[in-house]
Amino acid sequence: MPIITLLSDFGLRDAYVGQMKGVMVGIVPDARLIDLTHAIPPQNVVAGALALDAAVGAFPDGSVHLAVVDPGVGTERQAVAVVTQRFALVGPDNGLFDLVLKRYRATACVRLPSPTDASQTFHGRDVFAPAAARLAGGADVRELGEQTELQVSLDLPQPVERGETLEVHVLDVDHFGNLITDATVKRVTEWAGDLTGRLEIAAGGVRFRGLHRTFGDVAEGEPVAYIGSSGRLEVAVRNGSASRVLGVGAGAMFTIRRASGG
Amino acid sequence: MPIITLLSDFGLRDAYVGQMKGVMVGIVPDARLIDLTHAIPPQNVVAGALALDAAVGAFPDGSVHLAVVDPGVGTERQAVAVVTQRFALVGPDNGLFDLVLKRYRATACVRLPSPTDASQTFHGRDVFAPAAARLAGGADVRELGEQTELQVSLDLPQPVERGETLEVHVLDVDHFGNLITDATVKRVTEWAGDLTGRLEIAAGGVRFRGLHRTFGDVAEGEPVAYIGSSGRLEVAVRNGSASRVLGVGAGAMFTIRRASGG
Amino acid sequence: MPIITLLSDFGLRDAYVGQMKGVMVGIVPDARLIDLTHAIPPQNVVAGALALDAAVGAFPDGSVHLAVVDPGVGTERQAVAVVTQRFALVGPDNGLFDLVLKRYRATACVRLPSPTDASQTFHGRDVFAPAAARLAGGADVRELGEQTELQVSLDLPQPVERGETLEVHVLDVDHFGNLITDATVKRVTEWAGDLTGRLEIAAGGVRFRGLHRTFGDVAEGEPVAYIGSSGRLEVAVRNGSASRVLGVGAGAMFTIRRASGG
Repeated sequence: MPIITLLSDFGLRDAYVGQMKGVMVGIVPDARLIDLTHAIPPQNVVAGALALDAAVGAFPDGSVHLAVVDPGVGTERQAVAVVTQRFALVGPDNGLFDLVLKRYRATACVRLPSPTDASQTFHGRDVFAPAAARLAGGADVRELGEQTELQVSLDLPQPVERGETLEVHVLDVDHFGNLITDATVKRVTEWAGDLTGRLEIAAGGVRFRGLHRTFGDVAEGEPVAYIGSSGRLEVAVRNGSASRVLGVGAGAMFTIRRASGG
Repeated sequence: MPIITLLSDFGLRDAYVGQMKGVMVGIVPDARLIDLTHAIPPQNVVAGALALDAAVGAFPDGSVHLAVVDPGVGTERQAVAVVTQRFALVGPDNGLFDLVLKRYRATACVRLPSPTDASQTFHGRDVFAPAAARLAGGADVRELGEQTELQVSLDLPQPVERGETLEVHVLDVDHFGNLITDATVKRVTEWAGDLTGRLEIAAGGVRFRGLHRTFGDVAEGEPVAYIGSSGRLEVAVRNGSASRVLGVGAGAMFTIRRASGG
Repeated sequence: MPIITLLSDFGLRDAYVGQMKGVMVGIVPDARLIDLTHAIPPQNVVAGALALDAAVGAFPDGSVHLAVVDPGVGTERQAVAVVTQRFALVGPDNGLFDLVLKRYRATACVRLPSPTDASQTFHGRDVFAPAAARLAGGADVRELGEQTELQVSLDLPQPVERGETLEVHVLDVDHFGNLITDATVKRVTEWAGDLTGRLEIAAGGVRFRGLHRTFGDVAEGEPVAYIGSSGRLEVAVRNGSASRVLGVGAGAMFTIRRASGG
């Protein structure tokens, strides 16, 4: 049973996601269709790229990841299918695959043609879903279109060292209000040497020690910094919303210092 | 693998949808269950009818569409299964199937009995889901109940010609804030002759030219009229919410005129 | 096709649920994955327990129910798999299974070990999903961990008799604004003798007669008490939100009396 995951900014209010699934089961009747999320904020390619990057590693080899956050639908932006050693990606060439492809090298990339009767506002249904289904059904990516190169990449912030501090940036706020940063475990380890609780974090005017292992390592309502499940530095508030308590959202900056006397 | 789609106003907060699925996999273990949406506003039969109408065409022949927006649950309203050449519909007789059945002719319609131990507030689980599963499993619709006729139809607005203008009405606002109207592509073409950008749309006090092919044909933040993916005239705001920017919601009216000097 | 249901407070904004599914299809490729809900309010174990209790009865024997509302993730709270005659439960030992296990007796319970490389904030993906998948794939529960006992139970309110009245408590408010109480049909029947409309309910300062069979038994906008689909006394407002109209939420108390002259 070939696996196709779906990620979009379509929401679940309308039947848009259902239509994509209808098209795919019409092409590959036994495909497993697994939603990653459809609640990417409208047109927010960065949030889509982060969610996809967090998810692909959990799926078996051979999965096809269909991702549609596509403000340029119907314009000259490329529609693409990208293949790596482990999985395939199908969606618009607008940076959505950027984070994933930093970790998994593309081995092929083709430009998907648009059928003449395709809706110009819903390539998810008329261009991407059929391509994902054909790949899942066993088609070679080169049957789907002409070879091309990705043209668009994301311009994401990076942690910045300033003297004794590391400035990190909030890329996303999750369902719980946890703050997900641009500091990967690798980057923090390189900078801090170890992660054994000898850091001081300043976020939203509040200072606290870290890193901790998990939420329960601090008291209820207290902020806690830890390496999250996608391998990035995160800040949470135990049994609360860090975003709300600290007044910090996507785009915010906070600093890490080696704790004095730590 | 027989396909059953699900549409309801049950939301995803509770386990109501899960319960319907549990019942169905108990009857047809290999059924494919595909959600259309469960975010139809509570008791909003029109929104349900529109979402169903937009979706059925994307599914393979033989699919069963289970749709439950059912303010009259437990009363004398009929519970029905309707069969067309291409698919079956299961749900309450309250207009929910009206739009679909304008395009796909019913070939049979039966009234579903209510088991004596059925919950009187959750026919989705106790009446409709079992019927949908039995149909998906290969039962003939006539095994499910006595033949009947649908008794309820929707009273939807229609575009109105007034001199040089066509008045159209917003039937629904989608996840993106796009305005979906009662003007089908057929109706607009009959009236306008062609759709090549020579129309002037007035919506929410704003005038703009159209039709365009897609969002990207106008500048960021500008309104754009186009034929949407379900074959209806829609108005969007590029990378924004037309509903919010134009202050227009379901029930609103706007006008189309042939552009002077267009 | 083994069935695994999923319930959590993860929301659908992020790809957390998708990651759990990816792990499970990697272990049991043909597992049927059915969402109960992922909209349990964050850390609200009671709401999770209620939703699970309402849902398990709808699923075929042999199903595995994966439930993750886990404020204590990564702490010393136990991760468990519990088996009953009809199904298995996998999740944290924090009361989440309490209501279900009052109705279905546990026949075995094991403590799930945490792999050394498990994320300490996402046992859903790294501890519970693999265990659920192995159970669904046919593993014996004793292969998954050492035998243990559940240590945590819920402290839920119970209906209280005070003279001529029964005080009942709102445990949850559903998607429609319906109020779900701690009064099971059994408890109400024991107290009232019958349920034939001879009761007087006082909720949020409003008095009304009941019980009724269904919403449509009262006029639009009127409150209605009935036995809900999960076997509990509920109060709704026909085509409206009882929670909003009556100003009553989870935790509220209301009273039932035998109607005078009823």
